[in-house]
Amino acid sequence: MALGTCRTVLITGCSRGIGLGLVQEFLTRSPTPDLVIATCRHPDQAQELQQLKEHHQHLRILQLDILCEDSIKKVVQEVEVLVGEQGLNCLINNAGINRLATLESVTAKDMLTIYETNTVAQLMVSKAFLPLLRKAACQDAVMGIHRAAIINVSSQTASMQLFFQNKKSQEVYPYRISKTALNMITCCLAADLISDGILCISLHPGWIKTDMGGSKAPLQLKEAIPAILNVLANLREKDHGAFLDWKGEVIPW
Amino acid sequence: MALGTCRTVLITGCSRGIGLGLVQEFLTRSPTPDLVIATCRHPDQAQELQQLKEHHQHLRILQLDILCEDSIKKVVQEVEVLVGEQGLNCLINNAGINRLATLESVTAKDMLTIYETNTVAQLMVSKAFLPLLRKAACQDAVMGIHRAAIINVSSQTASMQLFFQNKKSQEVYPYRISKTALNMITCCLAADLISDGILCISLHPGWIKTDMGGSKAPLQLKEAIPAILNVLANLREKDHGAFLDWKGEVIPW
Repeated sequence: MALGTCRTVLITGCSRGIGLGLVQEFLTRSPTPDLVIATCRHPDQAQELQQLKEHHQHLRILQLDILCEDSIKKVVQEVEVLVGEQGLNCLINNAGINRLATLESVTAKDMLTIYETNTVAQLMVSKAFLPLLRKAACQDAVMGIHRAAIINVSSQTASMQLFFQNKKSQEVYPYRISKTALNMITCCLAADLISDGILCISLHPGWIKTDMGGSKAPLQLKEAIPAILNVLANLREKDHGAFLDWKGEVIPW
Repeated sequence: MALGTCRTVLITGCSRGIGLGLVQEFLTRSPTPDLVIATCRHPDQAQELQQLKEHHQHLRILQLDILCEDSIKKVVQEVEVLVGEQGLNCLINNAGINRLATLESVTAKDMLTIYETNTVAQLMVSKAFLPLLRKAACQDAVMGIHRAAIINVSSQTASMQLFFQNKKSQEVYPYRISKTALNMITCCLAADLISDGILCISLHPGWIKTDMGGSKAPLQLKEAIPAILNVLANLREKDHGAFLDWKGEVIPW
């Protein structure tokens, strides 16, 4: 499925896993965005990401530490130069961390560290890119990633309504709590940004075999990532403020 | 409605507002618990709470800073001496803070501070009291606050499903996000503690005229607090893991 006229997309956390997979898919799918901006904390250590540059002129790799206010400011300035008056169409808040922690082992420090990275940083990055997203939103009337969108990469384990189906992941207290909080950020952003025409969703990318997902995950990147891009391409006003999975199905909060 | 045989209850954040109201109601309603333990950060400054001691021998006031690991440890030791082999029946995680913060004004620091107090601390306090709650849980078979329970004081503004009915409170980004995260803690605790027979719920106490609720709140303490105690007294296994309001109605996540 085509991506319409999504000219510019920025994805955080692209050194590996789902972030890297999304970058690869955006670069190879037709029509390719004019610009795929991949950020990560240590671009010089992101070998696979750097290798993509050899074959893809539309890729820009920028350094971003989502926990650092100055780093966020700097990357927004860099992106502003790259996208110009067209603004930024799509921001994918993908960066995140996990750590095993049961009720017995969870610490206050773990809770705060993971909330800062998985929740607070997504809000701060989204806020910082609002001027560029608003610029892009002015240039179309139909909501979607071709216009302006914030995609928060969440997790089905964040669903309280499905909670008792996901008992296993109680081993990740700080992670699932941080992702539930991220879902509320999606709701808040959706309410505040509807008047700007900026579409906001939470996305469960599927449980994928990656460094973070682990070897027990049922999904391969090559299966989930193209499906995710189909979901993104089809996002419209009806999806605004929703929690969707990689197949486009609504997940209850 | 009677409170059954709830012998011991501990409430955090009792210097004023809902916490103080709950203490007063527990002390005056029949049958009164053997022990109502009220904690707050600065007992010496909590005049109204101290005045209650003059007329109520069942009241104990203990100093607790829920952000401080040592303070939590100390209070658990003090409570252990007070409750003995009977354990603690009911822990009410009521302490919390709020701060106005819109999308424009919200900072990472606000987000972290409010999460630490409203969310992380409730988990840490609950963990610390588990041995005393488990002791109490061993002495009965029917779930309820007469046996063992953790009551997390949440807020209806934390509901994502009701989100678009509560637009006004977008002015409290960090607060409502922290309370949504607290609701997930309730789910996690409910799943992990069901085998111990410890009942866990999130409670929306109503929007009450207090220092935190403000003057626009539609409810008076004298209306909401007795209703809350009715809800608590009637909690049973069917309510385990639920999000209830002050009238006992289920709030969707």
